[in-house]
Order: sequence, then C-alpha cells, then structure tokens
Amino acid sequence: MLPLGLPDTVREALLAPLVDHHCDAVRRDELSRAQYELLIGGGVPAPPGTTHFDTPVGVAVRRWCAPVLDLPPHAPPAVYLARRAELGAAEANGRLLRAAGVAAFLVDTGTEDDDLLPAAEMARQGGAAADEIVRVEQVEHDVAEMACSSADYLEGLAEELAARAAGAVGLSTVAGHLHGLDFDAARPSRGSVIAAAGRRLADPKEPLADPVALRHLLWTAVDVARERGLPLQLHAGAGPDAGHAAPHRTDPALLTGFLRALQPAGVPVILLHCYPFHRQAAHLAAAYPHVHVDVGRALTRTGAGAWRVVDELLELAPFHKQLFGSGCSGVAETAHLGAVAFRRALGRALMERLEAGEWSAADAARVAYMIGSGNARRVYRL
Amino acid sequence: MLPLGLPDTVREALLAPLVDHHCDAVRRDELSRAQYELLIGGGVPAPPGTTHFDTPVGVAVRRWCAPVLDLPPHAPPAVYLARRAELGAAEANGRLLRAAGVAAFLVDTGTEDDDLLPAAEMARQGGAAADEIVRVEQVEHDVAEMACSSADYLEGLAEELAARAAGAVGLSTVAGHLHGLDFDAARPSRGSVIAAAGRRLADPKEPLADPVALRHLLWTAVDVARERGLPLQLHAGAGPDAGHAAPHRTDPALLTGFLRALQPAGVPVILLHCYPFHRQAAHLAAAYPHVHVDVGRALTRTGAGAWRVVDELLELAPFHKQLFGSGCSGVAETAHLGAVAFRRALGRALMERLEAGEWSAADAARVAYMIGSGNARRVYRL
Amino acid sequence: MLPLGLPDTVREALLAPLVDHHCDAVRRDELSRAQYELLIGGGVPAPPGTTHFDTPVGVAVRRWCAPVLDLPPHAPPAVYLARRAELGAAEANGRLLRAAGVAAFLVDTGTEDDDLLPAAEMARQGGAAADEIVRVEQVEHDVAEMACSSADYLEGLAEELAARAAGAVGLSTVAGHLHGLDFDAARPSRGSVIAAAGRRLADPKEPLADPVALRHLLWTAVDVARERGLPLQLHAGAGPDAGHAAPHRTDPALLTGFLRALQPAGVPVILLHCYPFHRQAAHLAAAYPHVHVDVGRALTRTGAGAWRVVDELLELAPFHKQLFGSGCSGVAETAHLGAVAFRRALGRALMERLEAGEWSAADAARVAYMIGSGNARRVYRL
Repeated sequence: MLPLGLPDTVREALLAPLVDHHCDAVRRDELSRAQYELLIGGGVPAPPGTTHFDTPVGVAVRRWCAPVLDLPPHAPPAVYLARRAELGAAEANGRLLRAAGVAAFLVDTGTEDDDLLPAAEMARQGGAAADEIVRVEQVEHDVAEMACSSADYLEGLAEELAARAAGAVGLSTVAGHLHGLDFDAARPSRGSVIAAAGRRLADPKEPLADPVALRHLLWTAVDVARERGLPLQLHAGAGPDAGHAAPHRTDPALLTGFLRALQPAGVPVILLHCYPFHRQAAHLAAAYPHVHVDVGRALTRTGAGAWRVVDELLELAPFHKQLFGSGCSGVAETAHLGAVAFRRALGRALMERLEAGEWSAADAARVAYMIGSGNARRVYRL
Repeated sequence: MLPLGLPDTVREALLAPLVDHHCDAVRRDELSRAQYELLIGGGVPAPPGTTHFDTPVGVAVRRWCAPVLDLPPHAPPAVYLARRAELGAAEANGRLLRAAGVAAFLVDTGTEDDDLLPAAEMARQGGAAADEIVRVEQVEHDVAEMACSSADYLEGLAEELAARAAGAVGLSTVAGHLHGLDFDAARPSRGSVIAAAGRRLADPKEPLADPVALRHLLWTAVDVARERGLPLQLHAGAGPDAGHAAPHRTDPALLTGFLRALQPAGVPVILLHCYPFHRQAAHLAAAYPHVHVDVGRALTRTGAGAWRVVDELLELAPFHKQLFGSGCSGVAETAHLGAVAFRRALGRALMERLEAGEWSAADAARVAYMIGSGNARRVYRL
Repeated sequence: MLPLGLPDTVREALLAPLVDHHCDAVRRDELSRAQYELLIGGGVPAPPGTTHFDTPVGVAVRRWCAPVLDLPPHAPPAVYLARRAELGAAEANGRLLRAAGVAAFLVDTGTEDDDLLPAAEMARQGGAAADEIVRVEQVEHDVAEMACSSADYLEGLAEELAARAAGAVGLSTVAGHLHGLDFDAARPSRGSVIAAAGRRLADPKEPLADPVALRHLLWTAVDVARERGLPLQLHAGAGPDAGHAAPHRTDPALLTGFLRALQPAGVPVILLHCYPFHRQAAHLAAAYPHVHVDVGRALTRTGAGAWRVVDELLELAPFHKQLFGSGCSGVAETAHLGAVAFRRALGRALMERLEAGEWSAADAARVAYMIGSGNARRVYRL
C-alpha cells in the first residue's frame, strides 16, 4: 500500500494506528444499489446512462475495499455489491472499519437515524475506541422542537449544549454548509438574538439558516467549549450535498474575522475538509496559534488524486497543526478509504521529500506520527 | 506522444478520434508575425523586447506544430512562421486540423468575420464532421441591430434563437466574460426586461453588458434549449482577453444559484474552461446531475503544464461528466495543441494511476473513450 | 542541489548569479530561540508543546542552512541555533547571504529598525550590489508624523515620495496587507482626499488603513513612478502576519480594475508573492502588458513544496513576466532559502519539460536566465 523504498521507521509510523478525529456515522442496514450509489454520490442520483461508480470514490471502492471483502481489486460494481450483500452489512462494516487501522474514532453525532451505526457500535465493530463530537446544530434542532418560548429556547440551548458536551471530546458545526462562512464574526446582540429565537420557533423543523440564530449558536458553543476545554470543529469547503451553500461561500478564509474574535477564548479550532480551499486553510493554521486543519472528506472523495491534496496542505500548514480525519459518512467504505488515502498520500509526499534530500527519515517518521494520531491526542486531550 | 508503458488498449483509446465539443473558428487568411503573436497572446501585444513565443503556448506551437509543417521540434519562431507562410494558410490549417485527430468539431459561431474559417470548411479541411453551437450573444447582437422597438427586440430574440437553434447541437454564452458570473440567478421580471430592452436599443452596437438584458438572454436561451433538448455551454474562468470580466468574477461557483434554478428545466449545462477554478467546476459537476465540465482553452494556454490541470479535474469530477474540448480560437494550431495536450495529459494521469495500482487498464481505456468522445456523443446526442 | 541529468547549459543558467528583486531587511543582532522562532513563524508564537521548526520553513532551515554553518543537513534546531550563536550574527548572516548566490539585492526599506541590516550592509555582507525599493507606506508614515495640516501632509507626501524615489529603482506598497486589494480602483477626488488627510493626521502613528488615504497614496506613487520610469511592486496573497487582511481580500484578481486604470500610465507593475492566488496572478501577467509576477515569500514559506508553486506559475505566466524574488525577511536564512527553493523548483520544472520532450535545452537555459535575472534587469533598468 505504501511506496516502495520507504525507510522502515517511516513505514511503521504510517501504518501505526490512527486517530480518526472526524467521522460521521455510517449506515448499518443492507443497501440496494440505488441506495449505495446515492450514498457515495452526495445524495444525488447519477444521470441516466451513468453510474456513481465512474467517479474517483467509486473506483477507489472497487480498488481498496474489494480485497477486504475477499474480492480481487477492481471487481465490477455488481460483483462488489453482491458480495457485500452476501456477507451482510454487519460483517462488511466490521471488516471495513477494522481494515482502516484506527485506534480511536471521534464520531460526529450530527444525524439521528436508526439506520446509522451508533458511535459505540462503530467502535466495537472497528476494534477501536470511540468518543463523541457534539454537532451543535443537532442539539439546537432538538431544543427548538421542545422550546415553548424564546427564553426557553435560549436557556435550553446553553444548558443542553453544556450537558451534551460533558460526555464529549469536542463540538462541531456545519454553519458553513447551512449558511456559508461569510457571516458577521461578532457575537450578536441580546436583542437581535431574542428576535431570532422568535423567528426560529415559528418553524423549528427546518434546518437552521437564520444568520443571527446561527451566530448565537456558534458563540454559545464557544462559551461551552471554553468552559470545558474542548476544541471546536468547523466544516469548511464545498459540501458534498447539492443543497449546501455555494462553494465560494465556504472558503475558510471567510472565517478570518471569527477566528480572530475567538483567539482570546483559547478554544482550539479545527477546520474540516476545506477542499478546494485547503491552501487558504493551511495559511490560517500557520497564522493563528489556535487553528488546526484537516482535508477530511477530500481524502475519500478525490481517491487516487488525494496525494496532491495532502501534499498541498503540507506546503504551508505547520506539521503540528494537521490532523488525520477520514470525514467518513454514509458507508463504512469511506472510513477505510480515508485511512488508505491518507497513508498512501502522506507516504508519497514523504518519499518524495526523502528522495529529494529535503527531509531526514527521522523527521518523516515523527511527522507521520504527529499527523496520524499525535496531534489529535494533544488537541482533544485523549 | 503518449507515456511509454501504457497498455495497448489505453493507448488506442487515447489515440481514437475525439469529439472536440467546443471550438471557436480559426483564421483562414495569411498572418503576419505581429498578427500571429496577437492571436496566441490574447489580443495584447507583447511588451517591447519580448515575444509571445516565450509563453507556454508559444513553446508548444514550436514543439508540437512544427513537425506537422515538416520542421524539427523546437524550430525558432521565425522559421516556423516562414514555413507556415510558404505552405500557405489553407495547407497549414488543413494539416494542423487533421493532425488533431478529431472526428467531429462542434463550432461556436460566436464571431462573424470573413477571415474566419466557417464551420463546414473547418470540418472539410480537418477531415471531420462539424456541428454548430449557437453563441447566444451573437444572435442577440444581430437582433438588437435590427430591432425597432423593445417589443420587436424581445420577440425577435426568442424567434431568432429558436430559428438558429434548429440547425445546431447546442447553445453557448459568454455572459461570464461580458459581465462576470455573479449575476442574479432568477429570471428577470417582464417589466425590468422591457426597460432593459429599451436601454439596449439605445446602443445596439456595444457588446451586451446590461445584467438584466443578459439574464433575459440567458433565460430565453434556456427556454429554447429545453424545447429542443439542447445543452447550454457556459464560459467560465479567466477570459484570455484583457477586456473580460476580472478573474474572481468568473469563478463557476458563482453560478451555483443559476445552476440550481436551471435544474428543473432538465437542460444539460457544460462549464467551459474554468481555469483556475476548475476544482470548483469539478465540484459542481459532482453535485448537480445536469452539470458537465471541460478545461478547454486551458489545455492550449498552459501547454506543458496542462497535465496538472487535467489531473486536478480528475480529482473530483465524475468521469461521465468530463468532456474534451480544445477551446481553440484564433489559429488552427490551437485545435491541434488542445488535442495533443489532452491526450498527453490524460495519458500521464492514467499512467500514474496504473503504475500506482489505483486503476485497472480496462477502466483507464473506458474512461479515455468517455472523456474523449463518448460523453459528448451522449450529451449532444450526436 | 539541482536534479541529476540536467544539461550543463541549463545547470549553468540556474546557478548563475540571481537578481533578488524583492527582499525585506533581515536582522543583524543575535537572536534568542524564542526570537528566532517568532521570525520564521510569522510573528506568532508556536502553541505550547510545539515548535515553528516543525513547519516547511523550519525543516528547510535545518536542511539547507545548516551546511552553510558547517553542520550536517537536518541538524537539530538547538544545534543549529547554538552554532549560529557561536559564529555570531554577522558571520552567519554573511555566510547565508553569500550562499544565496545573488548578484544584486533590491531591498525594500519598509521597516526602520536599528536591528535590521541596512541595504548597503546587506550588499556588502552578501558580496552583491544593492538597490533600494521605496516602501510608500513608510514614507507616508514619516510624512504623517511631521505634517501640521492636510495641505502640509498632501504636499509633503508628493515631495517626499519623489525625493526618496530619486535614489531608488522602484516603489512598493503593502496596501493589500493593510486593507486588502478590494479597494476602489479610481483616483480619489480632491475633496475626499483632503478629508482623509484630516482623519489621518488625527492618529498618525497608526498603520495607514483608511481606504481613501491609501488610494491617494497609491495614485501619488503611480505619478512618481511614471515620472521617474520606475516600476511599482504590489504585495498580494496571504500575508504571513495574523494582523494582515484576510486571505480572500488579497487575491490579486481584485486588482484588475486598478491594473486597467494604471495601464495608460505605462508604469510596470510587479505582483509579489500572490500565493495561494499565483494562478490568478499568472493570468494577469498574461493578460496585461505592464503586469509581472513573482511568488517571492512563498518560495521560503513552502520549502520542499515550492516546486509546485513555481510550476503552477509556469502554467500561464509568460516567461518574460516572471521574476525571481526571495521575499526574504526576518532572518538571513530566508534569502538563502528563497534562492535554493527557486533554483531547485525551476530546475525540477525544466527537467520535467526536457524529459517529456516538451522543451529544448536551449530554451530551458534561456528561460532560466530570464527569470533568474534578465527580466529584473529589463524591468528595473539595472
């Protein structure tokens, strides 16, 4: 799986158990081909006459997951899905999660769905530990559905976030997908928040899109994170869902003002995914002591192309600010593919630096451990 | 021309006749050196003491077009242009167009000029079929010059677009160059359109830049495309002409709202060129079923650097959504160079994936056919 | 240092003395580890438990500067800094500046500080010539501190800029860092300028951030540059300082309107740094005859990753429009690292083009001279 010629110490560092610091839950049920294609295709059906297997992630599934299910690499889609069904979802998921070689999954509890594998079960099947990352929009949704008044909503939000955070290792937000990252950085005024709460309660089942309510949620999450010493994950970059904010509104550079406003709070921030704006994210990680970065879901989505994304992040991001995360979601394959892409991509980047005489093997091994697990252990205090 | 070691099937697929789904017309007349340099230099003279041959496209002309004119690779500019003159424009154009190895040119009839090769002639000289893509701004210009009233203009626009589309395989728009892609996505109101038509008729010889009139033109084109089942080409990315919209206003991500508004119409869209925003375009092609993408003119303009552009598009764009187009314009060399750059770049990308064990040869060959001609045949119903 | 297999002529061209057309002054005093880390880390301390040596520039210092101080490559940070202290700042600076292989430094006199090496001293220690680039914001600062009235300020600004320019080879501006490049391109009206001058004099010690006063300064600089036939350097791209404008406001594409407005003045412009927007800068250099480009500080900051940045610039920027500049600042190491990264990166790019049969060796050597020194000699009339 790794480039030939890598020194043993570097190889060992790359193959060591990872901390996957950002996973979404994956499906536990049996999936039809149509369902499977939707899950690897961002929720949109492929046009007539085409298939989502003709995408970077589709090719990667056939290449890297087929052998985990005892098939030869590049098995045809129908053969792959038939074998997956034959093994059953539980067996397939277990194999794929274990193949990822992950010591700990930090699972984002963004979506509640009986068809999703709970974090504890994901850990058990993957032979790993699991910790929880609280998706603040999910908490907000629960609170909005229950609240009877603006005061109730605002009080409930702070309380429920604190309560959920008590059992978690971090918080996450998808404000970038729901609204875009071009929001006003300042904490909103009390008056505007009360008005926003009133608007929110008029339609609590809708995804939260009101910019004032979102900013209030973010700043409440910052308060909770500061009190508990937890980091905050911010989704950035083009969301895979066609309903998400337009890509140019998800450039993490748009967060600059918010990141500056956050700096005194001492809350570590991790910019997630970021593609195709990962160079901007790397700059932010270099410029601000509390900012970290991963390329998460881009590892899986770009498949064979992930090496360049990882290498571009290495251009500027301090090595102590980069974290491995698979950004897995939908199917267990993505957890495995994220780990494979990360190890192969970082292996190629390190191999090039070694061959060019730019780096020493000792540094290469050390940095592989840092990005693969060490930085996450430090930032999340695992 | 292709990397050594490519499997025969992949080599054959790469060398198979292409469908060049987006060409501008090229000059048919004899060209002085000054004229030639302007045409390969985006219409701007090189500063004193410099030459546009010291650019990626200039080097590529000497490398890849010189042998087509019986010269050694890297022939000096003066030698190249002397040989071109010696052969005569017709012979040189014919050789270069045939060398492109294209089965069908889809020619954008954007500019009317007696010095330009008509589509049928381009086809004849290139030993290929040719079909027409109707540039909607050209139709608008013709209508604006003839119209006596706003009502006349609006009626004429719809009628003339429909009439021209009857003989074409697609429509194209350069609204991104004229105005930028940051326009309001919604169909403009009837009242605002009538007012815009009035403004337009006050100065019908100017290029269309009024945003309301442009939006009306776009939505009228969408209506025609839907009725006739034709795709719509949208120019995006930095235009080569210094008078075009500033680059940051040509990011195809700015089209997200328009693409969403278009989706129910079922009109296939192809984002053209897109460089340096081709990763954003790839995301759009992945997220929306009706959106396709090429890197067109960037193949020619970036010359030896085209491989990275093609490879970056492969990071995210579904393989059934990518189309080959040379984006040729000005001189016939660009048709040949686009095809050379495409074949070499895709060949390098596939070779890397094969050597890394990421792809099978069968998939590589299949995808080469898809991008080279198959996708265009499907989208344009050739 | 250069790729094996490069033809001798290309190797000689790459190793020939450079003109470093944009340097900031470097520190002349002895530096503690904390000071040193701040200088290579953009002015921000590394978080607890981390070090700025775990960054691309940190690794590059150990790799490429350690041997200049008689240490083996990859020497540990503590060993490197101990050796640096042992030699003394003067000896270390001299060795590093000479190692850069630079024939002439064009030194930006942006910051006045007794701890900084003056341009003449930098030249002497580096065995090179030195010329001055006048940082217009520094002149403005001096004038604002002395002026008694708006009229005094405005008159003083024009006079002092002209006086300082008389001994310089160019002007530079950091308006992009102070404010962002998204300013109104037009020359501000006399009335608005007088009002801005009044505001400015109320707080003359602050960095200039008022957009009207900045635009007035820019246009005054343009007047001086035109009169004296001097080029104007514009800092673009993400500034290394966390207090600088947010990255998305430093995209050089935002300058398009200003560049167009400047074109009739015949003042050459050089876009500095530009990363991660160097492709946009390359486009501007291709589209406008008076626009040039470097990737300056990105050479040092990206270290082993610089080859891709240089290669991406080569995708579109005319070869007669690219200039070498180290963008060095803070420590003398950055002058050496910029030169190393440039030679290695361009060497790799040329080697790839030669191996792929895209370029001839003669062209490769010629372009290496052009970018390394020839273009700077032409643009700055050295």
